[in-house]
Amino acid sequence: MSAISFSSVCFHSAHNWNNPKEFGKLRKQQDGKLLVKCLSKSGNPISQNAVRVGILGASGYTGSEVIRLLANHPQFGIALMTADRKAGQPISSVFPHLSTQDLPDLIAIKDANFSDVDAVFCCLPHGTTQEIIKGLPKHLKIVDLSADFRLKDISEYEEWYGQPHRAPDLQKEAIYGLTEVLREEIKNARLVANPGCYPTSIQLPLVPLIKANLIDIKNITIDAKSGVSGAGRSAKENLLFTEVAEGLSSYGVTRHRHVPEIEQGLADVASSKVTVSFTPNLIPMRRGMQSNIYVYLAPGVKIEDLHQQLKLAYEDEEFVAVLENGVIPRTQSVQGTNYCLINVFPDRIPGRAIIISVIDNLVKGASGQALQNLNLMMGFPENLGLHYLPLFP
Amino acid sequence: MSAISFSSVCFHSAHNWNNPKEFGKLRKQQDGKLLVKCLSKSGNPISQNAVRVGILGASGYTGSEVIRLLANHPQFGIALMTADRKAGQPISSVFPHLSTQDLPDLIAIKDANFSDVDAVFCCLPHGTTQEIIKGLPKHLKIVDLSADFRLKDISEYEEWYGQPHRAPDLQKEAIYGLTEVLREEIKNARLVANPGCYPTSIQLPLVPLIKANLIDIKNITIDAKSGVSGAGRSAKENLLFTEVAEGLSSYGVTRHRHVPEIEQGLADVASSKVTVSFTPNLIPMRRGMQSNIYVYLAPGVKIEDLHQQLKLAYEDEEFVAVLENGVIPRTQSVQGTNYCLINVFPDRIPGRAIIISVIDNLVKGASGQALQNLNLMMGFPENLGLHYLPLFP
Amino acid sequence: MSAISFSSVCFHSAHNWNNPKEFGKLRKQQDGKLLVKCLSKSGNPISQNAVRVGILGASGYTGSEVIRLLANHPQFGIALMTADRKAGQPISSVFPHLSTQDLPDLIAIKDANFSDVDAVFCCLPHGTTQEIIKGLPKHLKIVDLSADFRLKDISEYEEWYGQPHRAPDLQKEAIYGLTEVLREEIKNARLVANPGCYPTSIQLPLVPLIKANLIDIKNITIDAKSGVSGAGRSAKENLLFTEVAEGLSSYGVTRHRHVPEIEQGLADVASSKVTVSFTPNLIPMRRGMQSNIYVYLAPGVKIEDLHQQLKLAYEDEEFVAVLENGVIPRTQSVQGTNYCLINVFPDRIPGRAIIISVIDNLVKGASGQALQNLNLMMGFPENLGLHYLPLFP
Amino acid sequence: MSAISFSSVCFHSAHNWNNPKEFGKLRKQQDGKLLVKCLSKSGNPISQNAVRVGILGASGYTGSEVIRLLANHPQFGIALMTADRKAGQPISSVFPHLSTQDLPDLIAIKDANFSDVDAVFCCLPHGTTQEIIKGLPKHLKIVDLSADFRLKDISEYEEWYGQPHRAPDLQKEAIYGLTEVLREEIKNARLVANPGCYPTSIQLPLVPLIKANLIDIKNITIDAKSGVSGAGRSAKENLLFTEVAEGLSSYGVTRHRHVPEIEQGLADVASSKVTVSFTPNLIPMRRGMQSNIYVYLAPGVKIEDLHQQLKLAYEDEEFVAVLENGVIPRTQSVQGTNYCLINVFPDRIPGRAIIISVIDNLVKGASGQALQNLNLMMGFPENLGLHYLPLFP
Repeated sequence: MSAISFSSVCFHSAHNWNNPKEFGKLRKQQDGKLLVKCLSKSGNPISQNAVRVGILGASGYTGSEVIRLLANHPQFGIALMTADRKAGQPISSVFPHLSTQDLPDLIAIKDANFSDVDAVFCCLPHGTTQEIIKGLPKHLKIVDLSADFRLKDISEYEEWYGQPHRAPDLQKEAIYGLTEVLREEIKNARLVANPGCYPTSIQLPLVPLIKANLIDIKNITIDAKSGVSGAGRSAKENLLFTEVAEGLSSYGVTRHRHVPEIEQGLADVASSKVTVSFTPNLIPMRRGMQSNIYVYLAPGVKIEDLHQQLKLAYEDEEFVAVLENGVIPRTQSVQGTNYCLINVFPDRIPGRAIIISVIDNLVKGASGQALQNLNLMMGFPENLGLHYLPLFP
Repeated sequence: MSAISFSSVCFHSAHNWNNPKEFGKLRKQQDGKLLVKCLSKSGNPISQNAVRVGILGASGYTGSEVIRLLANHPQFGIALMTADRKAGQPISSVFPHLSTQDLPDLIAIKDANFSDVDAVFCCLPHGTTQEIIKGLPKHLKIVDLSADFRLKDISEYEEWYGQPHRAPDLQKEAIYGLTEVLREEIKNARLVANPGCYPTSIQLPLVPLIKANLIDIKNITIDAKSGVSGAGRSAKENLLFTEVAEGLSSYGVTRHRHVPEIEQGLADVASSKVTVSFTPNLIPMRRGMQSNIYVYLAPGVKIEDLHQQLKLAYEDEEFVAVLENGVIPRTQSVQGTNYCLINVFPDRIPGRAIIISVIDNLVKGASGQALQNLNLMMGFPENLGLHYLPLFP
Repeated sequence: MSAISFSSVCFHSAHNWNNPKEFGKLRKQQDGKLLVKCLSKSGNPISQNAVRVGILGASGYTGSEVIRLLANHPQFGIALMTADRKAGQPISSVFPHLSTQDLPDLIAIKDANFSDVDAVFCCLPHGTTQEIIKGLPKHLKIVDLSADFRLKDISEYEEWYGQPHRAPDLQKEAIYGLTEVLREEIKNARLVANPGCYPTSIQLPLVPLIKANLIDIKNITIDAKSGVSGAGRSAKENLLFTEVAEGLSSYGVTRHRHVPEIEQGLADVASSKVTVSFTPNLIPMRRGMQSNIYVYLAPGVKIEDLHQQLKLAYEDEEFVAVLENGVIPRTQSVQGTNYCLINVFPDRIPGRAIIISVIDNLVKGASGQALQNLNLMMGFPENLGLHYLPLFP
Repeated sequence: MSAISFSSVCFHSAHNWNNPKEFGKLRKQQDGKLLVKCLSKSGNPISQNAVRVGILGASGYTGSEVIRLLANHPQFGIALMTADRKAGQPISSVFPHLSTQDLPDLIAIKDANFSDVDAVFCCLPHGTTQEIIKGLPKHLKIVDLSADFRLKDISEYEEWYGQPHRAPDLQKEAIYGLTEVLREEIKNARLVANPGCYPTSIQLPLVPLIKANLIDIKNITIDAKSGVSGAGRSAKENLLFTEVAEGLSSYGVTRHRHVPEIEQGLADVASSKVTVSFTPNLIPMRRGMQSNIYVYLAPGVKIEDLHQQLKLAYEDEEFVAVLENGVIPRTQSVQGTNYCLINVFPDRIPGRAIIISVIDNLVKGASGQALQNLNLMMGFPENLGLHYLPLFP
């Protein structure tokens, strides 16, 4: 069996077999080393090489989304799932939509035996996450989906989260998991702080533009929109169907906790402090996130320069696509997938541009990017288990 | 029966009778003249004073919304309803939700006898409206809900609508119907060009601020969101439930036809050309509109100045409310009503502010404001027939 | 001012003035006695006759719906509103959509002074309601929207609600408030047990058919569908937007608490025990309820007999409409209104029929029927404050 | 590489590797023959064995759903896609959500070269489909998703579709594609008539019960609910977001075209004519279908017998699951998947039962079952490309 042919199976890309263009693309992404990793020593890739994954906090939406994605992952298996308040229950009692799956029962974290586990997705609430990760065995690779290790400056963490950081040493070790921007660091990381959904949708378009000095970093205005799953699964009156449906509302105006993370990411590439205007809006839909970003062009820069710079920055990326001129990204086009779609438009006010980016807040904005990161951390192609087309309609 | 007591009936405000604060408010709004008009010559206000209203284009959403509002209007009765392609049919065949009502059948405009009609709401598509209004008898008061008479500069009309204006003389006569801003002109108008939904939601907060020189008119960024009914009732693939639900999309980026209307209204008070950044977004809800407006403060101006100026500008208005500090307006709070709710928030970027305004696009953004205008044009209190509380949930 | 003219104002039916057919209908509904009642002793209907209403439990959806309806009621004013856990707060802190209204602040029931109150809507949860109503002053007219006084047989209450009834004497006094069926009893009642939403939508079509012996009472199958507001406003995981949207589920299969109420109502007219098959379904919409009822015709009976019997039964009713042959009732057609729309269809299986009825669960299914009842109890026309057309779209 | 290990990759079931129970299940489903087929002659499964698939009518929802499913299919590749009115366009102009995929452009059927194609999914409207399939080369395996070959009795076709059948010979050849019921016939078929969504959701629970004589076939009452995608993608007023959202309506009462297909399927196992009561309801959600089926038990039969019979009938099936006692199937639990979930409940009326089944109307109700069938027709395991977990929320 030739490596090339099997690689197609491995990447679940059978639909492209008869398309020469696509083959070129696949080849570019898969160097020999990756293929060897994927196939590994002739024999049994699953039983010998498979990664045994734990999901900490499997009763929330990011946890169940990890489960969904792993269902089509050729190398990762679920070894254990925790949910302290639901310990002892089958996952189907928490998520009836998983009742057809043969999954381990939920256990309490304290009862988890991590000696048979290689890596964990940590899907716990911020605040408590620090202590828990501090207590995990050191052999584990960890992708933390909470906010607890995203801010490098722990004084900023204290300011926005109202409590001192309890694991400052781990914070120093943590790598920020914006895959396309920090891929090499992620590959070698033991602990990855998976980015927030808003920060992902905002940094992906802005980082290449700031890096290339194409926009003014002093006047970035972001009007972002999110589906309701971004608020998690806790039973709150303001998240009831009756309260959310058929309406729209801004929230956290000027003080949403994703602000420091956004500004940190932009400042890193700008090499100077960045303050952004950021307003999130709750939209009556379950998933999806869109950021409309209003920017001023740097002197002499044209809209087309932005478009080309983004095209260039992401031409080799599988999960970030810059659309053709004039095509408006839609959240429906990424539902259930790890894609981020971006485009740039001229503003009526000369010297300005409008950037629109869309992601699925639970995939590229959470569990999908987490899996992308763990793939890298374990030495696999980053797209394993992420070959989903959007569920539309 | 005392005038005061009856006025309460007239204004359907019975729920306030036991509330002294409210009585003060009512008295302020109702001068003697209005009360006399409303009650009129001892006797039969309905049969003698009632206004006979025609609805041209009753098969669309703005038409049916006029019908809904008139159901609780003490002075207006529906004399005729037209819908050329549905002529001869009962309204229930077009709008099953009106089947319980005793309404005249739909007729073709050419068959309408306007001699028994005092006023018309013109709910027809732009373009054809000009010719039709040109042909109407001159005794009619007209509120036109199309875009055809909103732009004073007919060359601008031609630019944005792709055809020369066919009734330039009528255009000169037309008064722009943003009630709170042009109330006195509207009272004496024969033809009112009812504002678009986006322009209403944007001008109401911005006009008082520009008038008071509190904001920079060169850097106004508007990210607006609309429910789907704003697109009307035509059967288009992109408006299907399956295409719209569970997603979000910007549209008409940088070239939405409401732009010149918005800029015209702001330029009028600024006394100079105004160019705004305007991006509308389609939200998966039936009704509701929110405009997030990002502005730069004029030198020395503070957020609180904006809040106070808006409070001042609208303190006597029934339908525009400036919320208390920190309260975020929600579209759910105006659903089915003629209210516009506004608030101002500090931006993270110093020297800037975020203004949020919400309306129901079919009421204050269309048929409600149209009725408010016709009330004024006929000499009635402007709130007749508009006493609806939001339908929530 | 003539009685006729004022009656039109009183009934908010101005839109019908130019429609001779409608006048006939109005005259039929308004006998002299009602008009006199409505107008009362020459003078000030509001200040002298007005009914001072209390709302117990104003922080839930049925409470806020009462508030919405009273906004256009010419005779009822709100004297007090209670919500124990929110006592001391303005209603706008609980329902932002009411922030434009001048309403009394919320108080605790124990602090309510009922000496200035004529009637109360009791919008409290079942169970606690019994004790509270037992403690209310006897001069109060009470419409109870909970389930606590709906079941005549208190042993049945205990069976379905898991606790003994604590006010059996009051239970004997309570009149079941299905207005069209028990109008005369309601007029003289002091305590009305307002029907549940499902029972209302089911009894309205079935009672006349059973009364006329047109259907077999042994084989009634009901598949009913409800919007989410039927579940109230409590923060439960299964009512979150994310859990409800884009899906459908049956619930309470074979054991929904509305069953004994439905069977009691049908047994009353059948004069024998009735057992029905009843399956409710939760639909991703905020309001609206539809019951599809599958019945066997009595020997010799035809579909058309059912249609005619229903037409006959409801021909003088304002709020129950039997549609023309073949027209399918839609929940959208009653949204925000007190209407019940009914129709009958032939089944493919000979000798059977399908009955479809729709209501708004919060209006005819709760607060609207409650107001209809209180109107009657206070001697007013039952349609006061209920003149709303559906909010569509 | 051992066959066993690869089979896991082939089945994308990596998540089960550490679960001994699951291994047993997989082994049962995969006999040696299937594994050989899947892997085939040592070498290149894709380039030598891969099936080249055409999609006729790729611009509708069933077409795009086939594309979505094939993205994770290891053996099928898309060779051509037709859409006559969109010929020459890229698929992204019709379905923006597919713009990230490298797919062939749309062509007209008349321009399709079928010599390089092994099989087609025919996703065209009923009526025209007959002629088109008649004209296709005979070497093609065909799964037809239209209604054109579902009714064995062509006079019945003419009665329900209003035109004589134009390919009666093909009709004789066609195999009805209800996979779990007619698997062996499907394996050898050249033309499969893929079942309708309602018939699938109804026959799967009823066929085993009728076969075992457990229910009365004379009194089957079905109240079914469907998401809006069941109506396809044509631009019709009644399918607009504004018309469908926040409401519910029955349609096609007593005369829905799926009735003869349902009755044919049940009659086949009952060996006598079956007439059912069938009422479909349109639900404001994009996908999902639920059938509530009310049945009378045969003499002496108990609810538990039904449950056990269904458990038994489907114990070896991957895509049909009978839930544990008391668990209510929800449409959210199958969204985006090929599963059918079933359960049985006691009715309040003795001697009766309530059966609830749910599917995704676009997957098990259309494109998923179509792929399941083509897998069988081509000699592959039927679950290839169908390993999706539900998208929830």
